[in-house]
Amino acid sequence: MRRVAVIGTGHTKFMFNSTKTSMEMLAEASMDAILSSKIKPRDVQAVYIGNVLGDFSEGQGMVQSFLADDIGCLNVPATRFEGACASATMAIRDAFMWVASGFYDIVLAGGTERATAMGTALATRTFAMFGDSRYEFPAGFTFPGVFAMLTHLYSHKYGVPLKKLKEQMAMVSIQSHQYGMKNPKAQFQKEITMEQVLNSFMVTSPLQLQDCCPFSDGAAAIILASEDVAKKLTDKPVYIAGVGQSSSGKISSQYKYLPRLRAREIAVKQAYDMAGVGPGDIDVCELHDCFSIASIIAAEGLGFAEFGKGGDLWEKGETKIGGKIPINISGGLKSKGHPIGATGASQVAEIVAQLRGDLVSQGRQVDGAKIGLVDTLGGDGIILSLILKVD
Amino acid sequence: MRRVAVIGTGHTKFMFNSTKTSMEMLAEASMDAILSSKIKPRDVQAVYIGNVLGDFSEGQGMVQSFLADDIGCLNVPATRFEGACASATMAIRDAFMWVASGFYDIVLAGGTERATAMGTALATRTFAMFGDSRYEFPAGFTFPGVFAMLTHLYSHKYGVPLKKLKEQMAMVSIQSHQYGMKNPKAQFQKEITMEQVLNSFMVTSPLQLQDCCPFSDGAAAIILASEDVAKKLTDKPVYIAGVGQSSSGKISSQYKYLPRLRAREIAVKQAYDMAGVGPGDIDVCELHDCFSIASIIAAEGLGFAEFGKGGDLWEKGETKIGGKIPINISGGLKSKGHPIGATGASQVAEIVAQLRGDLVSQGRQVDGAKIGLVDTLGGDGIILSLILKVD
Repeated sequence: MRRVAVIGTGHTKFMFNSTKTSMEMLAEASMDAILSSKIKPRDVQAVYIGNVLGDFSEGQGMVQSFLADDIGCLNVPATRFEGACASATMAIRDAFMWVASGFYDIVLAGGTERATAMGTALATRTFAMFGDSRYEFPAGFTFPGVFAMLTHLYSHKYGVPLKKLKEQMAMVSIQSHQYGMKNPKAQFQKEITMEQVLNSFMVTSPLQLQDCCPFSDGAAAIILASEDVAKKLTDKPVYIAGVGQSSSGKISSQYKYLPRLRAREIAVKQAYDMAGVGPGDIDVCELHDCFSIASIIAAEGLGFAEFGKGGDLWEKGETKIGGKIPINISGGLKSKGHPIGATGASQVAEIVAQLRGDLVSQGRQVDGAKIGLVDTLGGDGIILSLILKVD
Repeated sequence: MRRVAVIGTGHTKFMFNSTKTSMEMLAEASMDAILSSKIKPRDVQAVYIGNVLGDFSEGQGMVQSFLADDIGCLNVPATRFEGACASATMAIRDAFMWVASGFYDIVLAGGTERATAMGTALATRTFAMFGDSRYEFPAGFTFPGVFAMLTHLYSHKYGVPLKKLKEQMAMVSIQSHQYGMKNPKAQFQKEITMEQVLNSFMVTSPLQLQDCCPFSDGAAAIILASEDVAKKLTDKPVYIAGVGQSSSGKISSQYKYLPRLRAREIAVKQAYDMAGVGPGDIDVCELHDCFSIASIIAAEGLGFAEFGKGGDLWEKGETKIGGKIPINISGGLKSKGHPIGATGASQVAEIVAQLRGDLVSQGRQVDGAKIGLVDTLGGDGIILSLILKVD
């Protein structure tokens, strides 16, 4: 199989109440990706798009077909992927294969979502459709419910007192806002304090508002190219060195393993093995911090800390620039925002920027980063892992 | 790239008002595909599923992840595809690539839909989300509206009087029911007459009820394997010899080309070129007869008749067994049914059965069929083409 590189990216500002449709946001991000890749729309041979709720939020399904037409990628294959919050990462992994196999040389992948116009109550209900709707939603398992349960399980299983765990979780959110305020594309650009986090209103005990990422509108896109083509178009190709994907089904199928998510451990092992690297080789990571506890669980599953010790990373500052493993230097889902169908493409765009050294002017560059990891969770059971690297 | 074969299929009965959920139907079809392939669920390395309306019709998104868990394909990558009515064909084309590239040896692909419980009015409104919702749905372009317009355009452009065209369209529906009554999986098992068709109630002038396929519930699945694996498991591998996919965007972007669908002509050329065959080599075809006029338009776009002459194929009996190009010997969407997310997998399962010679006992075998074509239309702008063959 051929090497595949990301050669350009596009990213709208993430926000509440965008006045643009999901199609318009996706067109903006896609055209930015195309322009930054020094190609034209007609050079794009196929389009791979993540979108979760377009039919619910705007009455528009099959957004990828209209997007391709709107931006002048005429008559190309246009495919939509749905893996809940991991939809765009799923689209990118798939796009990778069509280039790696030699079938296409240049493709566009990305995602878009406009979720905030529904309002918080309906959005929470609607997102829950991507958990198990037969048994688990009726039992109260919205996603805040799932992660609240995981927080209690984590505290109990590893013997971390809830008070201490909550403080570590607060440090996750605080750090995300520290970096998010430096990211011009982020939804929130303000610092938050320990006091603010611990006094924010209770969503689902023990998760408070500042433990939870927001609902967001936004889009992101990338251009993938074969190595030969990439080298002609850029002197900074960022290669996709490893990919992994796994699913665990409903949360009750995972009960013996929780709060660990088995799908993550399987997916990231696939990606590490394919790239020939391990957790110690990762210079920068974007992981799926839909809730503050999710960051701690993810950091452990990805191999950055022993199980039960993930919170120490944030407490000791190891997740900051200069630390052992810089995590979510974009602001993460918590501060940058979480337009669910776009999130994976946003994570990839962030890692590409880090590996290209493009973030110095924003004051959040991880110096000399060569290898980055993207981790995206879809619903409570699908994990995507991507490893990107520069030579 | 490696050759890829279909080694087993599964297919629920298509029907109104299934008492099973889309997940249960998909599990049934998937387990039948697995058992008929002489493999076990743990042999399946990845799952590719088409589903369009699970969130709307049952409040269940991300059906592929729960399906994989339910049938014992534990922790595999499970991906959902949405390309409206072509979703399952899209899933199969994608699954093909992951095996052809050498990444996987055995994968499951399929689709499922439970649309009838919504009722006809809501289903029609909901399906229309897969057309353009910004300008075209508000202008009246539900899918019956689109194909009614295409009927008028066809009559005008090719100078076929509407009365004659309507009779030819009726012949399409009549033939579909003649074969559907022999298909135990079909939704309708009854013949219809010219008089019944032309006296059925007007849906969207000039389309009457018997010009329109039904809403349906059902699922279908197939197992794909690399050539080496396929030859160990079956003495009748059916190879995927060519694949094609193209999109045209909204209907107004296509206005200069209509009633021809440019995406079809591009997609099927890709498939023909890849397989090294042409229209004259196809022994049996399943095409997307969502409306009777759609069959005529499709037969021309696939190269089986000159433009403006497609209806003659049905009038002269050339589309029956023994004719020049047997079409929709399954009963097609009109008689077999159209559970939208499952339709492409059902078409593939039918062609596989024809190429294996499995339909003698049902009295609808195309003798000696070696090469088959699948054509699926998603919304009014995505086309998938697959060519299957036996050695």
